[in-house]
Amino acid sequence: MSQKKLINDPLKVADELVEGLVEAYNGDCVHVGQRSLALKNIPDNKVALLVGGGSGHEPIYHGLVGKNLADGAACGDIFAAPPPDIVLEGTQAVSKGNGVLYLYGNYAGDVMNFDIGAELAEEEDIEVRTVLIWDDVCSAPPTQKENRRGIAGLVPIVKLVGAASQSAQTLDELEAFAKKAVLNTRSVGVSMSPGSIPATGKPTFDIDEDKIGLGMGIHGEPGVAEIPMKSADELTPMMLDLIFEDFEKDEEIDALKEGDEVLLFVNSLGSTTMMELLIALRKAREVLNSKGIKTYDVMVGPLVTCQEMSGISFSLTKMDDELKKAWDLPCQSVCFSKMEGRYGG
Amino acid sequence: MSQKKLINDPLKVADELVEGLVEAYNGDCVHVGQRSLALKNIPDNKVALLVGGGSGHEPIYHGLVGKNLADGAACGDIFAAPPPDIVLEGTQAVSKGNGVLYLYGNYAGDVMNFDIGAELAEEEDIEVRTVLIWDDVCSAPPTQKENRRGIAGLVPIVKLVGAASQSAQTLDELEAFAKKAVLNTRSVGVSMSPGSIPATGKPTFDIDEDKIGLGMGIHGEPGVAEIPMKSADELTPMMLDLIFEDFEKDEEIDALKEGDEVLLFVNSLGSTTMMELLIALRKAREVLNSKGIKTYDVMVGPLVTCQEMSGISFSLTKMDDELKKAWDLPCQSVCFSKMEGRYGG
Repeated sequence: MSQKKLINDPLKVADELVEGLVEAYNGDCVHVGQRSLALKNIPDNKVALLVGGGSGHEPIYHGLVGKNLADGAACGDIFAAPPPDIVLEGTQAVSKGNGVLYLYGNYAGDVMNFDIGAELAEEEDIEVRTVLIWDDVCSAPPTQKENRRGIAGLVPIVKLVGAASQSAQTLDELEAFAKKAVLNTRSVGVSMSPGSIPATGKPTFDIDEDKIGLGMGIHGEPGVAEIPMKSADELTPMMLDLIFEDFEKDEEIDALKEGDEVLLFVNSLGSTTMMELLIALRKAREVLNSKGIKTYDVMVGPLVTCQEMSGISFSLTKMDDELKKAWDLPCQSVCFSKMEGRYGG
Repeated sequence: MSQKKLINDPLKVADELVEGLVEAYNGDCVHVGQRSLALKNIPDNKVALLVGGGSGHEPIYHGLVGKNLADGAACGDIFAAPPPDIVLEGTQAVSKGNGVLYLYGNYAGDVMNFDIGAELAEEEDIEVRTVLIWDDVCSAPPTQKENRRGIAGLVPIVKLVGAASQSAQTLDELEAFAKKAVLNTRSVGVSMSPGSIPATGKPTFDIDEDKIGLGMGIHGEPGVAEIPMKSADELTPMMLDLIFEDFEKDEEIDALKEGDEVLLFVNSLGSTTMMELLIALRKAREVLNSKGIKTYDVMVGPLVTCQEMSGISFSLTKMDDELKKAWDLPCQSVCFSKMEGRYGG
């Protein structure tokens, strides 16, 4: 059954939520063109960071615009990539003469539209590079990363790259940093029940009452298996093992081993409660501790959602000194804010 | 129908989520006694701040322990006040010789248990004061504030009092500040559908498919009326008007007028999406602007929840220079974090 949603015209939700987002930033962000958002005072010559994607997953993607985070976002309609003209308007708004990095989740529609947007921007002498986020280890094997989806790992990745963009001298430098942040970040998600599409009230997928979708994507894309519902303590090690295996199998990065440090992110896909996230986090720390893997810092909350979908994901980012320095920088946005430093630091 | 919840033993969720919370703080907090939580390095002679209440509303109340926030929390079982011995263990953990302020939502069970906890603490020569949070204007008229519930306004209130506690010299001073933060903060909530009790899967209340509960509490307590479902743009001014009327009718505080500044908090009670919060926020800013009331800063998110209950609340805190100074301080916790300053500052 459809959830009663507090909206106005169901066909205008994406426009109205961006208007609301601008109001949430209380003057620090401006609404640009049709449906883009940009920080107001981007310094001249800054290497700019543009994120974006379909709406409906709030607080991402547009909520990642903020201080020491993304400079702007190109916002699509509900579950739809931003069209190229919106990508262009976002690009123009953040460009300060030193290039623009596009950083977004690897979905066919987004790639097509951002690529066309980049071509339009290049015609206006704005240099653009693209780094795709593909953290979902269940969506393709490590040899086919180009087929992987971007899921919750995009929040720590954008946080890290946004921090690095404050001091990056060149687009090359920021691109290289972003590629490392992506390479070092892996996620696994599960879903217990669907969200509903705001315009129709229809569920985004079907699943049996006693089953969960292991490896499902943030729109309800099929995962690796439908498995019987499990307890938090059964499911958590199973999900983390998929991440550990992925690091092991991937020839581009070393396996996670004793003494390594990770950033741990436990995300709710919507209606899964913070209570559940904390119970799963408790077990995740036990699993990491048992392997001698140190937790550099922890993020927890409903940051990458699909309406009222229930489900959870774990993301691990393997940290090094450069990533730690970027992590420690404070940031402020509707999606994620932090003080300087880290928990346990 | 009950939501599939990712838990273990349904009777141990409150214990396990507190364990998870301690893990989320990565060493900055310690688990105290049965079910309390305290910051690790509370300075000697600090006027201490203890919060608490029933579990199941995460990220409150225990998620409000953090840097420049509460020093500790006494955690009850699901939807149940912490027993006096847990209040005592929390009090002992945060007490640094300069008194402890209890700051929590006004519910009969909490008042009884915290009062007994305070007596036990006084027997150990710990001076305790209590300030109750009663921001829900729909739960009693302004002449009967002692009968009002504490709802989402508790997050800005604890944020402000936590900041003030960093520099307060005496328990008297912090108590007076907390009373002002409470007096200046008013909230109105609505609910569209219930959450479910983790141990039984049973819904916390019933409501017709086409109705919403205006003024409902965070456990589904009855509000002022069941009204037909409305659009965001219809409901938002109706809810804010209840807050404006309350400021007008209350003889202890001036009405909100042109030129006044408020902190605006738009909260989700659980499964109501950030998309909806932003659409409502857009309208709320329009209403405030039309009255010439300035928005000092904005908070938005699912911070005061009741499991997967759907619903929304607005809270307004009337700001003055002392409150603004406290607001601007950065803070860090699982519930709410911010950088120094404010949006639009």
